[in-house]
Amino acid sequence: MTHRPPQPPPAIATARRAVRRALTEPGGPRAGDLVLVACSGGADSLALAGAAAFVAPRIGLRAGGVTVDHGLQEGSAERAAAVAATLRGLGFDPVEQVSVDVGHEGGPEGAARTARYAALDAAAERHRAAAVLLGHTSDDQAETVLLRLARGSGARSLAGMSPRTGGYLRPFLGLDRATVRAACELMDLAAWEDPHNTDPAYARSRVRVEALPVLEKALGPGIAKALARSADLLRDDADALEAWTEEAERGVRRADGGLDAAALAELPRAVRTRLLRRAAIAAGCPAGALTAGHVAELDRLVTGWRGQAHVDLPGGMRGRRVDGMILVTPPLR
Amino acid sequence: MTHRPPQPPPAIATARRAVRRALTEPGGPRAGDLVLVACSGGADSLALAGAAAFVAPRIGLRAGGVTVDHGLQEGSAERAAAVAATLRGLGFDPVEQVSVDVGHEGGPEGAARTARYAALDAAAERHRAAAVLLGHTSDDQAETVLLRLARGSGARSLAGMSPRTGGYLRPFLGLDRATVRAACELMDLAAWEDPHNTDPAYARSRVRVEALPVLEKALGPGIAKALARSADLLRDDADALEAWTEEAERGVRRADGGLDAAALAELPRAVRTRLLRRAAIAAGCPAGALTAGHVAELDRLVTGWRGQAHVDLPGGMRGRRVDGMILVTPPLR
Repeated sequence: MTHRPPQPPPAIATARRAVRRALTEPGGPRAGDLVLVACSGGADSLALAGAAAFVAPRIGLRAGGVTVDHGLQEGSAERAAAVAATLRGLGFDPVEQVSVDVGHEGGPEGAARTARYAALDAAAERHRAAAVLLGHTSDDQAETVLLRLARGSGARSLAGMSPRTGGYLRPFLGLDRATVRAACELMDLAAWEDPHNTDPAYARSRVRVEALPVLEKALGPGIAKALARSADLLRDDADALEAWTEEAERGVRRADGGLDAAALAELPRAVRTRLLRRAAIAAGCPAGALTAGHVAELDRLVTGWRGQAHVDLPGGMRGRRVDGMILVTPPLR
Repeated sequence: MTHRPPQPPPAIATARRAVRRALTEPGGPRAGDLVLVACSGGADSLALAGAAAFVAPRIGLRAGGVTVDHGLQEGSAERAAAVAATLRGLGFDPVEQVSVDVGHEGGPEGAARTARYAALDAAAERHRAAAVLLGHTSDDQAETVLLRLARGSGARSLAGMSPRTGGYLRPFLGLDRATVRAACELMDLAAWEDPHNTDPAYARSRVRVEALPVLEKALGPGIAKALARSADLLRDDADALEAWTEEAERGVRRADGGLDAAALAELPRAVRTRLLRRAAIAAGCPAGALTAGHVAELDRLVTGWRGQAHVDLPGGMRGRRVDGMILVTPPLR
């Protein structure tokens, strides 16, 4: 008589399948490698931990866990210790609880993110982990896309988070939050609801609590999935256009470092403006301060040349056209 | 003694400048040409008519007007007659009032749009107009982008309306509705508020009245401008990627009409999927029914080939891989 093993509930099966797929992609971790799960104690990353604890040993990987204590809320150290204990209970080894100092640059959410990723990078390095798994869902992706839309961003920015960035994997990026939370509950893992997630002081919380439900009401159900789908398409576009830009740069860059204006003018605007942006950043303009408006001004030196003066760029740099070449340099003394 | 002519109020000057810029772009109408303003009687298109009435004679163009009576609301014929009278009062010649029959295909808004553009096309043809001017503002553009985001669209769709599509020009696409409405009021033109614009039965009205104000509250002011700016960037991206796709198609299309799978596999996904989409439509798949999911299935014949059966496509078509070629054909008998 043959026995079929009992089937897990669908939400758990979906979560495990997503983790398995992410860990077995070409170029991913290899047998014997360690993968670390980044776990806040929230339902999404707990479900990720639960799924990884099941999947990793079955495909010959070791699973460890990291929880970051941002030190921003009362009792955060005790909570981090509880999360670490849960991870150990799942059989993870090593398990680390890391405290970070959150600075101020980039606003409260940006600063916490910067500190968190620095701590995860360091933990991955320390343990020679082949990958770090993050619990972002398609709902997080939709929130990211909406936040970036508010800035008037281009394709790369609107493409949101990638399922894979360097050593970071996001196995749940194609799953919605409801499925992932159901999986967490069915795994009997006790999740912690971060009050920041619904605190209207944070832009992301406002998007989650106020903006998305109203959009859903106005535009019909499925808006979060639709935003995530657009992000996927735009990520492909950004990849292709960046490859084209790199290729094109070789054709327009002269030996002395200037860019040939006539050759630039032959390129489609999407490629030309990306190329000008890269050149300005390479010359020393701080990327964060360089707007599409600055790049459009630089572009007018190429396509609307009528002998205009230099273009002022962030970081005290200047764009000029000299002898049919576009140059980005510090002001001439 | 020299006299400076009195300066118009800033909103009127802005509106006129936008119309002048649109009408004097390279490739635009030439001296003596007729341009038609499409006017609903709403504030946006009335301001457009007022600005065009001022600008056109000063740059050697003739200005005419068309107002379309959709026959969907009580008293619409009388209102169209009043709009036509206003246009004549502005010195437009010819002025036409066209009645259309709105069908049902594509929902109420889609069907009205289809009928309206058909009537405008016909009027332009009848009068041999060099261009038709439309009153869309950056707020209309933002609404369009949000509506399309709800569908999970790619760059071309999210690029929204173009400042120029064939013979249609949208001079106000870079101006916000508040400026355009102020211009209309300052021109002493009596605008009609279409109750459909705030009727929650229409998706666009819900976006305007419900979604955008909440987004603005959650994400900060300027969301409409930001959406319009993203649309501009994505339009450039779509143009460049479509040019690349056309170029690439010549390299992968074999003499017998099939597409070389190995050559396709070398292309970035953004180009490859556009190419596959074009090929499927060229072979007979109805464009409106062909989803990104269908195209992804076709793409798996290229990048995930493991001898799978054919892919079912809309319009009863099938995608297959035969002898290293991708073919889209009716089912084999």
